[in-house]
Amino acid sequence: MTTQQNRQLKLGAFFMIPGHHVAAWRYPEAEASSVLNFNFYKKLAQTAERGKFDMVFLADGYAVSNRFPAALEQTVSVRPEPLTLLSALSSVTEHIGLAATVSTTYNEPFHVARKFASLDHLSGGRAAWNVVTSAQDEEALNFNQQSHLLHELRYDRAEEFLNVVTGLWNSWEDDAFLYDKDNAKFADGSKAHTLNHEGKWFSVRGPLNVARPVQGHPVIVQAGASEPGKELAARTAEVIFTAWQTLEEAQAFYADVKGRLAKYGRSPDSLKIMPGVFPIIGRTEEEADEKKAKLEELIPVEAGVSLLSNLISFDLAGFDVDGPLPDLPELALINGGKSRFTLLKDLAEREGLTIRKLYQRIAGARGHREIKGTPVQIADQLEEWFVSGAADGFNIMPPYLPGGLDDFVELVVPELQRRGLFRTEYEPGTLRDRLGLARPVHPAQQVRAAATTHA
Amino acid sequence: MTTQQNRQLKLGAFFMIPGHHVAAWRYPEAEASSVLNFNFYKKLAQTAERGKFDMVFLADGYAVSNRFPAALEQTVSVRPEPLTLLSALSSVTEHIGLAATVSTTYNEPFHVARKFASLDHLSGGRAAWNVVTSAQDEEALNFNQQSHLLHELRYDRAEEFLNVVTGLWNSWEDDAFLYDKDNAKFADGSKAHTLNHEGKWFSVRGPLNVARPVQGHPVIVQAGASEPGKELAARTAEVIFTAWQTLEEAQAFYADVKGRLAKYGRSPDSLKIMPGVFPIIGRTEEEADEKKAKLEELIPVEAGVSLLSNLISFDLAGFDVDGPLPDLPELALINGGKSRFTLLKDLAEREGLTIRKLYQRIAGARGHREIKGTPVQIADQLEEWFVSGAADGFNIMPPYLPGGLDDFVELVVPELQRRGLFRTEYEPGTLRDRLGLARPVHPAQQVRAAATTHA
Repeated sequence: MTTQQNRQLKLGAFFMIPGHHVAAWRYPEAEASSVLNFNFYKKLAQTAERGKFDMVFLADGYAVSNRFPAALEQTVSVRPEPLTLLSALSSVTEHIGLAATVSTTYNEPFHVARKFASLDHLSGGRAAWNVVTSAQDEEALNFNQQSHLLHELRYDRAEEFLNVVTGLWNSWEDDAFLYDKDNAKFADGSKAHTLNHEGKWFSVRGPLNVARPVQGHPVIVQAGASEPGKELAARTAEVIFTAWQTLEEAQAFYADVKGRLAKYGRSPDSLKIMPGVFPIIGRTEEEADEKKAKLEELIPVEAGVSLLSNLISFDLAGFDVDGPLPDLPELALINGGKSRFTLLKDLAEREGLTIRKLYQRIAGARGHREIKGTPVQIADQLEEWFVSGAADGFNIMPPYLPGGLDDFVELVVPELQRRGLFRTEYEPGTLRDRLGLARPVHPAQQVRAAATTHA
Repeated sequence: MTTQQNRQLKLGAFFMIPGHHVAAWRYPEAEASSVLNFNFYKKLAQTAERGKFDMVFLADGYAVSNRFPAALEQTVSVRPEPLTLLSALSSVTEHIGLAATVSTTYNEPFHVARKFASLDHLSGGRAAWNVVTSAQDEEALNFNQQSHLLHELRYDRAEEFLNVVTGLWNSWEDDAFLYDKDNAKFADGSKAHTLNHEGKWFSVRGPLNVARPVQGHPVIVQAGASEPGKELAARTAEVIFTAWQTLEEAQAFYADVKGRLAKYGRSPDSLKIMPGVFPIIGRTEEEADEKKAKLEELIPVEAGVSLLSNLISFDLAGFDVDGPLPDLPELALINGGKSRFTLLKDLAEREGLTIRKLYQRIAGARGHREIKGTPVQIADQLEEWFVSGAADGFNIMPPYLPGGLDDFVELVVPELQRRGLFRTEYEPGTLRDRLGLARPVHPAQQVRAAATTHA
């Protein structure tokens, strides 16, 4: 396989502690008791940085899933809040990007704009925001609501939320601060902009009390693959993190979303598509197979059923685990992750999987692509998608930690580098620079620049 | 003067960048351009830790005050968000406490509980929350409101907010997590507690998705000195940060609040009162006087008037700066910081100050106590309040940074240590331990312990 000249893949290190597999914490080498231990995260972040990853990526959720006792006792339901953790990691790393998931459903845009702007300054331009909506009723119950917002309303709110946040990031022009002691001018007031946003969901005046972020705007990441999700992404996202099982699906999605960019005046390069990948790495094929078998064997039945129920927003308790999926509601009635529901339903039908086989299949990757094999085989599978119009890079989901990340950094990264597919040293600059994304020009500065050109 | 056996004072390092004086940024040695530079904060935090301070303290606000152009151009209106900054500082410090101001007016208790619990875990038990209410209309406008909540409503909400947060911190008992790989028990479900809070302001189910904080609860700091503020503090605060100009006022407040503790079953030691102190330190008295004169001379008139207007919630623009304060509204009509309003009005009347003299007086300490002189004189003034029933310690507000903090650590701390008033090494344990505050026992564990004793 040959690659296009100079095009290199982007890699995210998706930390889920102590690993992405639902039974990871039972895996002998996983550090189960380190879920809230900073030194553990520091070691992981520094390993990822040694591996020249573009960014650390953290998911999030606002509830303990305790519908089923199994989830509470047999899975990991506690974790540090992502912005707190990434801020702490910012001062013990130098180059790696810091991507935090923050929901638009139960937050205020002023706070979110401010926290990411702060992290971007403190980290020297390494912040990224994974914009999500919240779709679990358990989360609604922690925020004065009885049930979560309808799918369409969530996206409507998310879009306005994002507009407010990016507007607040432009509160100050890049050169608004003068620090002029002699003339008593700390700032040039004409370069401060009051947003005065009055919308359907939010009324926010501004300006933000943080200077414009180092990156202009922290990098915007999104994950939605539904129709409104794709459209929002085409208009606003800079990185998409998606879940696809097959090359064909991934290619179709890639072409679809990249094809929507032109109508927003965007080039295909302005959006990087990075599907999730769950790699089971062995020094031999047999070792990889053994790891996979070991992980599957460690899944308690109740935990597997509970995981699957949550992913499809339908309670499977009481159904025979060795039977097929029961009749599921129509997609239109699902008010959860719609694309995940479809993906799992199709997978079970296509391959005739029982409930047990289905939860075993997704207990690691949770619907993302699982790849398995030797470092060369892993690299082959990444390269295939990368050169076939299915991906610009990958969000790597280690099955267990720290071992799963160590293996990737020590065994797979060198193979990718040998093929010229991945950097051997960090390029200078910000996360945005390393991802090949342009720094957004401040609208008022754009106007000024245009006036100067025409004068 | 002699001190009580073993009683040592507690010190906070209150960072306001580049100093507490409103003209600090114009002061020659102040690093005005470092307001968003992490390395600057790192240096300050490490200096404070070298000085054995109990904690770094960060104030906060949710708006740029731009009612007056002067405030926008002549004062520092940008700063990092406190939790982001303290999280970043947690990994480059070892012992010092990390106290962040977070308002109960425009936040959700679930998020606040979670962020402080996360910081407490990541920092090994060093988090403190300064609980405030928001009283600026500019802030309301950033959160879908037209004006800020009435004083009484703010406190009512604050009290319920605090109950929810402490309830969420008790979601898990201290020994709820088992990490038992063999028996597939990550957690003991019987030690997870669902809060099910249904109140006037909040409906929050829980449990929190973070384990019980290292300190049980992060340390609770409060600043309100109004009647509802004092009552809330007596019931819930562990540290009070107050503003008093005279020894008599401070003693009266100290006796008042400590006297309210018994009815809540609390001992006088369970609450530390730490007034703010703005120290102008010179190697000689003349040097201290020169520093003070220099700072006053650097205040632009508009910035001084604007600062004073904000502090008393009344617009003084248009009045003669060399005349007296105009007739001000009755206290009952002030819906801002009521105790600050009274303090400043009384001060102006008592000393017959003009507007200019009043803003010069408060341009540094903003109503807190200013002390000035040689290191020995500074130590004398701290010791006087400490041994006279006016303070358990102080929140130190350096006029300009980094110099004002360097001077305190290099000149005043050794003098306090020589007198036996301050630690020479950090005691082991958490922030709570070092402040001499008991770790809250989990209610369910208390019940279990009582049952065991009676059995």
